[in-house]
Amino acid sequence: MISFVNDYQEGCIPEILEKLQKYNYCANPGYGVDCICENAKKLIKQTVNAPDADVHFITGGTLTNKIVINAFLKSYEGVICVDTAHIATHETGAIEHGGRKVLTVKNHNGKILPSQIESIVNEHIGGLSREHTVKPGMVYISQSTELGTLYCLNELKEISAVCKKHGLLFFIDGARMLTSLFAKDNDCTLANMNALCDVMYIGGTKAGALLGEALIINNSLLKKDFRYILKQNGALMAKGFLMGIQFEGLFENDNYQKYCKSAIEKADKIRMALKNKGIKLEIDSCDTQTFAIFTKEQYQELQAHFDFGGATFKEGLAYARICTSWATTEDSVNALVTAIERL
Amino acid sequence: MISFVNDYQEGCIPEILEKLQKYNYCANPGYGVDCICENAKKLIKQTVNAPDADVHFITGGTLTNKIVINAFLKSYEGVICVDTAHIATHETGAIEHGGRKVLTVKNHNGKILPSQIESIVNEHIGGLSREHTVKPGMVYISQSTELGTLYCLNELKEISAVCKKHGLLFFIDGARMLTSLFAKDNDCTLANMNALCDVMYIGGTKAGALLGEALIINNSLLKKDFRYILKQNGALMAKGFLMGIQFEGLFENDNYQKYCKSAIEKADKIRMALKNKGIKLEIDSCDTQTFAIFTKEQYQELQAHFDFGGATFKEGLAYARICTSWATTEDSVNALVTAIERL
Amino acid sequence: MISFVNDYQEGCIPEILEKLQKYNYCANPGYGVDCICENAKKLIKQTVNAPDADVHFITGGTLTNKIVINAFLKSYEGVICVDTAHIATHETGAIEHGGRKVLTVKNHNGKILPSQIESIVNEHIGGLSREHTVKPGMVYISQSTELGTLYCLNELKEISAVCKKHGLLFFIDGARMLTSLFAKDNDCTLANMNALCDVMYIGGTKAGALLGEALIINNSLLKKDFRYILKQNGALMAKGFLMGIQFEGLFENDNYQKYCKSAIEKADKIRMALKNKGIKLEIDSCDTQTFAIFTKEQYQELQAHFDFGGATFKEGLAYARICTSWATTEDSVNALVTAIERL
Amino acid sequence: MISFVNDYQEGCIPEILEKLQKYNYCANPGYGVDCICENAKKLIKQTVNAPDADVHFITGGTLTNKIVINAFLKSYEGVICVDTAHIATHETGAIEHGGRKVLTVKNHNGKILPSQIESIVNEHIGGLSREHTVKPGMVYISQSTELGTLYCLNELKEISAVCKKHGLLFFIDGARMLTSLFAKDNDCTLANMNALCDVMYIGGTKAGALLGEALIINNSLLKKDFRYILKQNGALMAKGFLMGIQFEGLFENDNYQKYCKSAIEKADKIRMALKNKGIKLEIDSCDTQTFAIFTKEQYQELQAHFDFGGATFKEGLAYARICTSWATTEDSVNALVTAIERL
Repeated sequence: MISFVNDYQEGCIPEILEKLQKYNYCANPGYGVDCICENAKKLIKQTVNAPDADVHFITGGTLTNKIVINAFLKSYEGVICVDTAHIATHETGAIEHGGRKVLTVKNHNGKILPSQIESIVNEHIGGLSREHTVKPGMVYISQSTELGTLYCLNELKEISAVCKKHGLLFFIDGARMLTSLFAKDNDCTLANMNALCDVMYIGGTKAGALLGEALIINNSLLKKDFRYILKQNGALMAKGFLMGIQFEGLFENDNYQKYCKSAIEKADKIRMALKNKGIKLEIDSCDTQTFAIFTKEQYQELQAHFDFGGATFKEGLAYARICTSWATTEDSVNALVTAIERL
Repeated sequence: MISFVNDYQEGCIPEILEKLQKYNYCANPGYGVDCICENAKKLIKQTVNAPDADVHFITGGTLTNKIVINAFLKSYEGVICVDTAHIATHETGAIEHGGRKVLTVKNHNGKILPSQIESIVNEHIGGLSREHTVKPGMVYISQSTELGTLYCLNELKEISAVCKKHGLLFFIDGARMLTSLFAKDNDCTLANMNALCDVMYIGGTKAGALLGEALIINNSLLKKDFRYILKQNGALMAKGFLMGIQFEGLFENDNYQKYCKSAIEKADKIRMALKNKGIKLEIDSCDTQTFAIFTKEQYQELQAHFDFGGATFKEGLAYARICTSWATTEDSVNALVTAIERL
Repeated sequence: MISFVNDYQEGCIPEILEKLQKYNYCANPGYGVDCICENAKKLIKQTVNAPDADVHFITGGTLTNKIVINAFLKSYEGVICVDTAHIATHETGAIEHGGRKVLTVKNHNGKILPSQIESIVNEHIGGLSREHTVKPGMVYISQSTELGTLYCLNELKEISAVCKKHGLLFFIDGARMLTSLFAKDNDCTLANMNALCDVMYIGGTKAGALLGEALIINNSLLKKDFRYILKQNGALMAKGFLMGIQFEGLFENDNYQKYCKSAIEKADKIRMALKNKGIKLEIDSCDTQTFAIFTKEQYQELQAHFDFGGATFKEGLAYARICTSWATTEDSVNALVTAIERL
Repeated sequence: MISFVNDYQEGCIPEILEKLQKYNYCANPGYGVDCICENAKKLIKQTVNAPDADVHFITGGTLTNKIVINAFLKSYEGVICVDTAHIATHETGAIEHGGRKVLTVKNHNGKILPSQIESIVNEHIGGLSREHTVKPGMVYISQSTELGTLYCLNELKEISAVCKKHGLLFFIDGARMLTSLFAKDNDCTLANMNALCDVMYIGGTKAGALLGEALIINNSLLKKDFRYILKQNGALMAKGFLMGIQFEGLFENDNYQKYCKSAIEKADKIRMALKNKGIKLEIDSCDTQTFAIFTKEQYQELQAHFDFGGATFKEGLAYARICTSWATTEDSVNALVTAIERL
């Protein structure tokens, strides 16, 4: 059984494993003020070309989203996002548990339009209701999106401009940002995305780290006392150097590039095989996620040898997500491609 | 200038004013354990035919909604309601500030369909996501709705049955419940609505009290320690007897009936006048709220003598809400009717 | 049975009752933007000599404390107060429910010493722990205190200076401030107390209003969007004018003065009678509260005719609180004084 | 420079490192439902002799404390602990940020007395205040304590009995539990501690894991939907198997024993050296922490070669914590012992 269930099913890239051994008996200061973390932060700031940014490491995406939105919005401000956004659908109400309202608009291929931001701001700020509605205070997007699509640079610029116009913070969830850099539709660099937002994070977990997201705070108004906030939210790890190791491992010598590129190439290969076979895609995704629509029979046949983590069945069709990762092997992909060809 | 801005613009029914004077120098125990409150609670329990219910008085609707939803749902449970629900749109994110997620579905004339509840439960409980989404834990409706429409008894029974089936609490916000009892579309009594839900409240403010909502807790699992919850939420008034006076005043001799009936009759008269004049209604409401669509010219003419609290302008039309109250006089309504006839 | 249980057992001063009647059929805008509220705010700002302050009315003290501390402190900041402070002992954890930590120090006759503030700041900010402890962000005091004692002007100035030195907000809970103005130990005016703090409130409930606290925000950094915060916390009453009436009634023609003076005079008379009889006081209070230590026999004798709301028994002694109010009559006090003399 | 700063300065025991390599390319289901986690949970349940318990892995202690206390107490319940408890002093108000009040009593060598629990319960439940104070709902202790002392089995039994008597949950924070099993004062096993409490956790981080605490829920009323709670709090790691690896590594073949024993033996050796030299200890601790009182000169001399993470200076004396870990070498300890002897 070969698994294409998700992009976080394996451990970490070998460079990180080596570092774990190399540093294992070093005595590091606790709570992330060690020199491994410092070096990892330096590498990230260089990569995103933001020497003045503050970088913090947090164990996972939901915790990062919850902390950022709770900390940077006032209690009566809301965060705008699409209805398919991770914070709206897959975090068990973490944002609301943290006291903030999520204001959703209908997604367009997983993405938000600048005009939708304008509309929701106008509905909330203008009108007769005044202080009876929350004030929009932030725009949240995921790059790549939950549907595997990508914002192009121009779209990001437009969103950034609308945010500036209305005094909204712009927050980019980059859980899959590193791999999606290598997607065919991508025209962004880490640096130019980071230059457009107040705060963003680069996911380590889905790019070949054992854990961790690297949060980059650009807006200087948001930097103060952030370690207090981390500690209060249970996000300041005693062995903080563990996360330093992850990001040093990813960014040293740009190690992440070959692994992320590989993950995307594998996904592209699968998409090509599906297309050649005439199997429709639910969404025209370009990251490590492929959303295929099989017949029930096709799905059952593949299921004998490949694990997609289940499917949703509607009207005789099986909607399945096929996911590659930094660790997906050439052999695995070839096996799947062959199986698709034989369907 | 005659005001039809809302149903809470005047003070209180004369019976309450008299009681304020009558009781003014009595020494009452603090925090609502006085005999006026006890009597008011007894009257309410008799009226709704629920001798075993617990009744508590809370100053306003938003505070009541926030407390009930925060107290009765677990942190990872969400409350289902329509997109026009007060808790979703007009409480400045109070429910989320209290840590709970609001799960909205599209309204049908302000109302939720039992099938929508089924769907949202199935989406959240079934499927592949499991603990990554909130669990639906409650259904919230307003009777009458925010659009001035009413659930008929049968609809309430169906909602109640769906709630029971899925283990959801059923919560009715009755901010306008007392007046809407007298609406032409109504076929419910307080008693039979209360019999169908776990918890509901009867609004005093919009029925001729100075303040206060009477919360009725029917589900015995929800009764324990509720006064701790009130105190912690700043909802236990030192002079609790002030709210006892309001509800004794409303329910003694069924005083509320004549005032609430009057408010609805005035609204019906206005709706008739609009209909006769061929002025369209945005919504076919039947409570104290009437949603009229005037031409800009009509609106401006009326505006010279009547205050509707503003209007929303779209494509040359003015969407205005006209609201009557227990205190609206025959003269005021006649003046408006005449003005409408002359448009 | 004559009750001395508390200072919120009766209704309101006659001037407020009259206004309730006078304004009963006026059509006011909702949510406290009416002209009665405006006038009440103007009167308060004149009285405290703070033309630029923002004034808001909130139904009760616990709600006010919870909102102020939640809104004005960051999530990782704590509020410093004495161990007998209302927020530390009698609000069912409302402050913590609102997410903020209460940092208590031992009281000195109900009061905090400037040196204690220095110490707690140094413990938290200095030292090795850094971001592992909360940052002190505010000092909360009650004037008069929960033990019926008073800060003199000089003490308030010193606390204010320490707060400024360490960047702490200074918040005065004035639930009993109006009556205690007339206490023998008092050397403060409303204006000079208000000049020393960032935010304070003047309690209406215990000074002869039916409900309400008048919150005065002096620090301009704290003013923005406060009505959003009120609404979100369920503290924006639909019939906001009800609270305008309370404070117009108290402050118009300085009506509060005669009633508050009367309440204190009655308490002083009781204290004098106790002293003459050789009955010890637990605390040397000077506001409407008197803390007497009776023998069990004395207490039982008084209990036949007077209600003190219970007592705490320790080693054969009864610790009872005797409370006067604006409504306590000459006859009631004389009866109690005579009874004390006859013990 | 040899570091004795803390017990979380190094990476992990070699058995864990090996497992990280061994499992690196296996495809695991996400979010901790993999077979490594299952095996680790099985090992823990066997070790603590609790086949029916639920075990969950959480990244760190503060997050665990925050989640447990928020999830298992009602909003108006408080948690009782000593004034030196980690949750009271070193979590930046995390518990309060989660909405719960911490009720502290004075510690006795870091420990709580059963009689103190009785007292605080009686103060809060009895008396005149009723719903104006929080209800005690849980007792929290740390084993070993923050001062390095240990509860003996009999003390734990007494606390457990008081908790049962008053309906309080009993929660043991075992951040240093594994190492302290080998302390000279210890007479408990994991199994008999676990049998006495509703919920406890065994810290991995300070026992030689890279991260993670193993939470054991014994009380069946607390088990339901706990994974929802974890997800909502950002505590459900995508690569959950990373924590499975830590605890499989610690508990397989009882690997933890040799490392934890070593850490304690090293600490005992240091304490013996200090004692022989006549250097006083601030606290008579017995776990990996030693609290020495050096003269300023002694401290400066040691500081040249050893790092204790700073000291607190009072009246010419330096109060320093010396900490050993699973990774502390024989050579390091000998060097320190020799240096102490030469002071």
